[in-house]
Amino acid sequence: MKIPLKGKVLVAQGGGPTAVINQSLVGVTLEARKYAEVQAVYGALHGVRGIVEGDLLDLTRETMHNLERVAASSSSALLSTRDKPDAAYCSRILDRMRQHDIRYFFYIGGNDSADTVRIIDEQAREAGYDLRCIHIPKTIDNDLAINDHCPGFGSAARFVTQAFMGLNLDSRALPGVLIGVVMGRHSGFLTAASALAKKYEDEGPHLIYLPERSFDMERFIADVEQVYCKYGRCVVAVAEGIKDASGNPIYINLKGAQEQDAHGNWQLSGSGVLGEFLTDALRSRLKVSRVRADTFGYLQRCFAGVISDRDSQEARELGEIAVHYALMDHLGGSIVIRRPVMNYGVSYDLVPLAEVAGKTRVMPDAFITPEGNGVTEAFLDYCRPLAGTKIPESFRLRAPRVH
Amino acid sequence: MKIPLKGKVLVAQGGGPTAVINQSLVGVTLEARKYAEVQAVYGALHGVRGIVEGDLLDLTRETMHNLERVAASSSSALLSTRDKPDAAYCSRILDRMRQHDIRYFFYIGGNDSADTVRIIDEQAREAGYDLRCIHIPKTIDNDLAINDHCPGFGSAARFVTQAFMGLNLDSRALPGVLIGVVMGRHSGFLTAASALAKKYEDEGPHLIYLPERSFDMERFIADVEQVYCKYGRCVVAVAEGIKDASGNPIYINLKGAQEQDAHGNWQLSGSGVLGEFLTDALRSRLKVSRVRADTFGYLQRCFAGVISDRDSQEARELGEIAVHYALMDHLGGSIVIRRPVMNYGVSYDLVPLAEVAGKTRVMPDAFITPEGNGVTEAFLDYCRPLAGTKIPESFRLRAPRVH
Repeated sequence: MKIPLKGKVLVAQGGGPTAVINQSLVGVTLEARKYAEVQAVYGALHGVRGIVEGDLLDLTRETMHNLERVAASSSSALLSTRDKPDAAYCSRILDRMRQHDIRYFFYIGGNDSADTVRIIDEQAREAGYDLRCIHIPKTIDNDLAINDHCPGFGSAARFVTQAFMGLNLDSRALPGVLIGVVMGRHSGFLTAASALAKKYEDEGPHLIYLPERSFDMERFIADVEQVYCKYGRCVVAVAEGIKDASGNPIYINLKGAQEQDAHGNWQLSGSGVLGEFLTDALRSRLKVSRVRADTFGYLQRCFAGVISDRDSQEARELGEIAVHYALMDHLGGSIVIRRPVMNYGVSYDLVPLAEVAGKTRVMPDAFITPEGNGVTEAFLDYCRPLAGTKIPESFRLRAPRVH
Repeated sequence: MKIPLKGKVLVAQGGGPTAVINQSLVGVTLEARKYAEVQAVYGALHGVRGIVEGDLLDLTRETMHNLERVAASSSSALLSTRDKPDAAYCSRILDRMRQHDIRYFFYIGGNDSADTVRIIDEQAREAGYDLRCIHIPKTIDNDLAINDHCPGFGSAARFVTQAFMGLNLDSRALPGVLIGVVMGRHSGFLTAASALAKKYEDEGPHLIYLPERSFDMERFIADVEQVYCKYGRCVVAVAEGIKDASGNPIYINLKGAQEQDAHGNWQLSGSGVLGEFLTDALRSRLKVSRVRADTFGYLQRCFAGVISDRDSQEARELGEIAVHYALMDHLGGSIVIRRPVMNYGVSYDLVPLAEVAGKTRVMPDAFITPEGNGVTEAFLDYCRPLAGTKIPESFRLRAPRVH
């Protein structure tokens, strides 16, 4: 181990919150506080915005007891931002860091946050300012390059699983067509996780539509009709980012010009329009009396109490590992999760920021059925451990019929 | 104790499923199986429909082990129905019961199911057929007359609480206006339960709109604006059944002629239209960039793994108590839950079916603030124990600012 550079640590959280993002924050904070060379651990409020605005908390003064409670709480305890810093913004960040003698910067976020870290790292290098920059992954979308999976995904996958277990049970008691619209702009991982809800042969989700395959309305109606004829009901999982044959999100066609965030992403969640569109189409075309759609929206991101234990542990470890790389090895980069043992073990690694920054990983073909409306056993094997242990299970009566 | 009448027991589940309705089913089944006079316990599939169609399971042949697992599973294990039997339908039910020598009938359901039990009870009496008919309450709406609260409500209230905890955390991390649309046609209890999510002074739900008070769009927009100016964000709970000044559900005005079920109830859930309408109105009138609505839909009814322990225990006891009344006391009627000890204890009672059948209880005035957009401490005291113990809690950082 090299002797760590003297100075302060700065940690921040960016992008959409997750159920376990505070584990990484607390992992960084508690680990960094162990080093005599670390003069203070600062937390920036609202991500990069808090850095330029000087909105910082002194996490050195936070009790271990409260940090542990915060770690177990959903969402970003340091609050978040959708700001997408350009070079000028980043140079203001760097000024602030020099001002506070920040020598270690940890940014917990998705691929946009990784790109911010990449720019700051470059600028520090060019300016000859000794700064270790580390990106710590998080995203419920599970769409970061190189990573086997991303912290935050497992807990969201668990929510989606438990939600579809409920929809399965509900639609069996009162049959009809029940659609669940799940978050996912480009990557279908979270929507695909709905498949973990299936226990019995006749259970749903019977159909799964992902952004990785183009969505065809005629095909969709025919699929639903076929399932409905077979089982007398149909449970469908749809990613909010499903696209038409030209690659345009169905959602945008529906709403016309809509809000875009600073990253150029269209606003998809917090609206039931896609579900409404799909149920209207089914109602007008099929002879099914009961067609419903539930849009999971923000419920799936920070729902209190639905947390994957594995996801939580890994998010915590990532924070610690990030400190090890920065302080013991004097390295910067993006931490990634690999899975050397399929059933189940992880290892952590550090890769250059540019390999993760701004890139989006989508579902591999091996995870999607040839028909494009379901997932494979390979996906289930991949996803099952991530959703954690002790997932609730449902049971049916097995009593014989009275004759 | 009188000697029970010899014969068979029939149990069924009606209306919307809940997270604990199987506890009542298993309570009836296990308790009834203890009596030598009970020749068999039958379960009708799909409620009253299974009775007329002869679709019955022999629950005497179900293992205790599996019954316990079914009890802990959400939704109606005997499946359900929205059929609303008239006198002719009920007389066919009675024929079937005589055919099978059914002497005890337990129907687990809401106020419509209670009314069905009332008609069958009357017809049996008129026909001189010795039959004990008992209605066992369940409804997430918590709207049955006389009952302090209804089985199923506590678990749904817990879901709504945990959901709003998540929305609170999410909207604090990425501020804006976040609306949660909650089930509730005439009674606002479930929407009101969102108030349990508030822990910190600045947390939501800041505004709660209930079917018990008429909804005025101008007032709504002004309310949201005021909260947003104060806190920089606003979390709102809205019942799907909110009505305009003439008493018409806002939802119906939006969609025009819509599906009605056999009970004449408009279909409200499984659609995001109300949330869309409210967010559109706020976007066009307020200068708030981020306005979202999540419609909880069917997620709140059977979500796997979110169950109130108290709710679960009471639902189970109700099934047992029902058997006691019918077999030990030779009585029929509707079981009700009372609360002799506010913090917290329950007692069970039997009342005439007509006192519960077809009636709807709404929130008492003492539970709603004078402004009509929030709930009182009295409601919180009422609701808190029902959502059960060990509700997750969220914690914030308390670290001082860096100066």
